[in-house]
Amino acid sequence: MAPRTPRIGEFDLIERWFTRPAARSPLGVGDDCALVAPGAGMQLAVTSDMLVEGRHFVRTVEPRRLGHKALAVNLSDLAACGAQPLAFTLAIALPGVDEAFLDGFAQGLLALAERHGIELVGGDTTAGPLTVCITAFGEVPAGGALLRSGARVGDTLWVSGRLGDARLALEGMRDAALLDADASERVRVAMELPEPRVALGVALRGIATSAIDLSDGLSGDLAHVLRRSGVGATVQADALPMSADLAAQPVETQRLCTLSGGDDYELLFTAPARALDAVLRAASDAAVEVTAIGRIEATPGARFVDGRGAPVPGFAGFDHFAS
Amino acid sequence: MAPRTPRIGEFDLIERWFTRPAARSPLGVGDDCALVAPGAGMQLAVTSDMLVEGRHFVRTVEPRRLGHKALAVNLSDLAACGAQPLAFTLAIALPGVDEAFLDGFAQGLLALAERHGIELVGGDTTAGPLTVCITAFGEVPAGGALLRSGARVGDTLWVSGRLGDARLALEGMRDAALLDADASERVRVAMELPEPRVALGVALRGIATSAIDLSDGLSGDLAHVLRRSGVGATVQADALPMSADLAAQPVETQRLCTLSGGDDYELLFTAPARALDAVLRAASDAAVEVTAIGRIEATPGARFVDGRGAPVPGFAGFDHFAS
Repeated sequence: MAPRTPRIGEFDLIERWFTRPAARSPLGVGDDCALVAPGAGMQLAVTSDMLVEGRHFVRTVEPRRLGHKALAVNLSDLAACGAQPLAFTLAIALPGVDEAFLDGFAQGLLALAERHGIELVGGDTTAGPLTVCITAFGEVPAGGALLRSGARVGDTLWVSGRLGDARLALEGMRDAALLDADASERVRVAMELPEPRVALGVALRGIATSAIDLSDGLSGDLAHVLRRSGVGATVQADALPMSADLAAQPVETQRLCTLSGGDDYELLFTAPARALDAVLRAASDAAVEVTAIGRIEATPGARFVDGRGAPVPGFAGFDHFAS
Repeated sequence: MAPRTPRIGEFDLIERWFTRPAARSPLGVGDDCALVAPGAGMQLAVTSDMLVEGRHFVRTVEPRRLGHKALAVNLSDLAACGAQPLAFTLAIALPGVDEAFLDGFAQGLLALAERHGIELVGGDTTAGPLTVCITAFGEVPAGGALLRSGARVGDTLWVSGRLGDARLALEGMRDAALLDADASERVRVAMELPEPRVALGVALRGIATSAIDLSDGLSGDLAHVLRRSGVGATVQADALPMSADLAAQPVETQRLCTLSGGDDYELLFTAPARALDAVLRAASDAAVEVTAIGRIEATPGARFVDGRGAPVPGFAGFDHFAS
């Protein structure tokens, strides 16, 4: 291994870049374990995501954005369970000690953590190909987590925010979509700085019957909900919310990006039709827009239809091993 | 990415190799989060370790042993806190879907998990350079965790098991130590199949004043305890427990391997001198040998002396960024 700057020991590295006073967790960075205590009557929700250079991000990504996204994708999983984030651990492999990278990465990571009132409580640093593994912890009332398995026939299918901009950014990078400079930067921000829907997930406790976060694309993630819930769905493809940048693209690009985009980090959830007002109130409290995009049905599988009811050719979800 | 075998989707991969019925955790693999609930009055101890090919293990390691070790190093951290393991998550980057590798890795991993009565509750799989990141959870009575910061002047310094065989294996591989075939295999087992001292850690609750697991070498790990506790220590280098294989090596090799070996995964702990009987009873209950190797003193720093009281040249701890 050839460090790019003068050598800094592993322990100095943790102390310099990642240690902040632990205010909330009983014990923070620096012992064999961190200690985390959920409140009385609460369960701990746990999620872990690994980001690998060249697969989940490009070498040229701004370190600050990478730090943000690495935590954001985990908070998005907590949001999908309706969990309130508490703390996280970071394990990172670095090809060398690059101070500019670590400065930016830590800033992006810890800024998002601070915004959600959570702390880095432990982890591991090592030499190796750039890989970031974050495990995040949240609390949820015992028995109150939003699961993938709770969708019921007749439920309305909802999605938060807008879909497809992250995939549009990828299409732009591949020269498969034409974007001017401003649009390019906007969709790149959508890809690199996703906003986890934590407040919405918490607000949907007791209202939504199921939830999942959209990381692999709507069609693939919806399939998980349908399979686990033992139901099917019809989705109004023309109702899928999208940005003006995506709306300016050919309809094929719109379908590709909204239906099998990946990296949206919006919440896909179901709720009984009679819960309409409660859903809209939760969305308003969380300051996130939500859109009704379909209905849960007894017939298994997902059917995507356009505004005239004609079927839209389906798309497979994004799969890290099959794409 | 070029998979080595016919493509298998990420979700199939999790289901086929890593899904077991979740008996104890409220919710296992397959939702956005896993749910973990520590018992009443218990805190959750959390630890995360990342193993990278070429740095923590060689390409030729038996997959079954790698699966064992990846979990063992995390359980060792829980042991050092006196925590009873509950569950773990696995994030793994794989260069391709190699069925023989996954078979062996999952077997080694899940066999150790089963032996400790814990479950894989979630995680992530992706394509990338072979990297394993495990986060493990244990429970410990609130306020009862063994910390690095509790060593007091006058305490006896103890170590479990035997030190240095893992480093001796490395020296053998580097042709820096002569070992016959049987000895080579024995020390390689010590390196690749460490036994986390979970039962000892739990038995030492309320007895030990501080504890750490030996992952980076005695001299370096002891320095953490001394620094955090604001004390110093004198260590009897000739009292350090070692195997017959290491005892057959030149004294310089013995010192190197026992004092700055790394990868021992034994517990280094302190206890008041009057707790001698309690320590020996805990060790006996846990079926692990323990050895008194020194004493905590007020003078900062660690002093390593031989049987005649003469100083032994010190060694630095192993550091993944400085070695």
